[in-house]
Amino acid sequence: MDRVEALNVVKQQLTEKRYVHTVGVMETAVKLAQIYGADESKVELAAIFHDYAKFRPIDEMRKIVSEQQMDERLLKYGVELLHAPVGAYLVKKEVEIYDEEVLNGIRYHTTGRLKMTLLEKIIFISDYIEPNRQFPGVEEVREMAFSDLNNALITSISNTINFLMKKQQPVFPDTLAVYNSLILKEEN
Amino acid sequence: MDRVEALNVVKQQLTEKRYVHTVGVMETAVKLAQIYGADESKVELAAIFHDYAKFRPIDEMRKIVSEQQMDERLLKYGVELLHAPVGAYLVKKEVEIYDEEVLNGIRYHTTGRLKMTLLEKIIFISDYIEPNRQFPGVEEVREMAFSDLNNALITSISNTINFLMKKQQPVFPDTLAVYNSLILKEEN
Repeated sequence: MDRVEALNVVKQQLTEKRYVHTVGVMETAVKLAQIYGADESKVELAAIFHDYAKFRPIDEMRKIVSEQQMDERLLKYGVELLHAPVGAYLVKKEVEIYDEEVLNGIRYHTTGRLKMTLLEKIIFISDYIEPNRQFPGVEEVREMAFSDLNNALITSISNTINFLMKKQQPVFPDTLAVYNSLILKEEN
Repeated sequence: MDRVEALNVVKQQLTEKRYVHTVGVMETAVKLAQIYGADESKVELAAIFHDYAKFRPIDEMRKIVSEQQMDERLLKYGVELLHAPVGAYLVKKEVEIYDEEVLNGIRYHTTGRLKMTLLEKIIFISDYIEPNRQFPGVEEVREMAFSDLNNALITSISNTINFLMKKQQPVFPDTLAVYNSLILKEEN
């Protein structure tokens, strides 16, 4: 599936604003893929479809998590987590993309996970820093991402956990695990 | 063991400054025990001995963690974590306090743990708010502790995790688990 076709497919699923965000993630992710030597076409595809399920009804997403026997913790740590794993499932089922590297880029773009691949890191951070994102601290991470991907991950996760805690919202344990593994240099 | 004897025993283990802190923790903890209906004498004993191992050589503490087959993660998440579980071990061995409720108050006063007892929560929060503590945010938690113990825990843990992340230090996963369990109201 080429870029134009993929963008057309995903556009049907998104609001105009979210589509603009998606294009921003795609452009950022491809730049990072070039810098860090990731597979550009896979990165591009994962970026285009990362928010595919963003506007599915919450009940539908919860049902898919249960029926597909996904990680049950997804159901209690906030509805914002659902669209990533459900997106991976629906992109496979409805768009017929079967590449697990691409699907994992979609699946883990919100929570992260231990032993993230380069592609997964690129999607995660591109979602955070794409040019339309504007919030305190984004500029620092935006610059960092192009010179030190792991440090950008550390900082973005710190910011996100701090943000969630200020709002007294739960923090998915795997996200802290990514932070710790990078701080403790347990993985690349 | 009465208060005077206990304070005399612990004083030998501490610097003057840390002893003053310990008395502050003791006084705060006893007040909280009265408010929330915890066993005052057990709370007092745990508070007095909570920092018993604070000035043991790091190598000695690491050795005890290994030899006593304590949680191995204690060895990688920062030396600040060692004195609590090692303190519980040494207070049992050297001071001959065998009450597991008291020992757990000492053991978990730095990291917290899931399903903390009332005594453990009181020691944890007293260590954070005792009158000699001065740092940004302490006053808010100090007031909260006397009216809403769980909310004080949530806020103190949020502050601590944020502080650690700003310094790019690792965060013990169990501490986040306490935060999440309280936010998700999975325990009292």
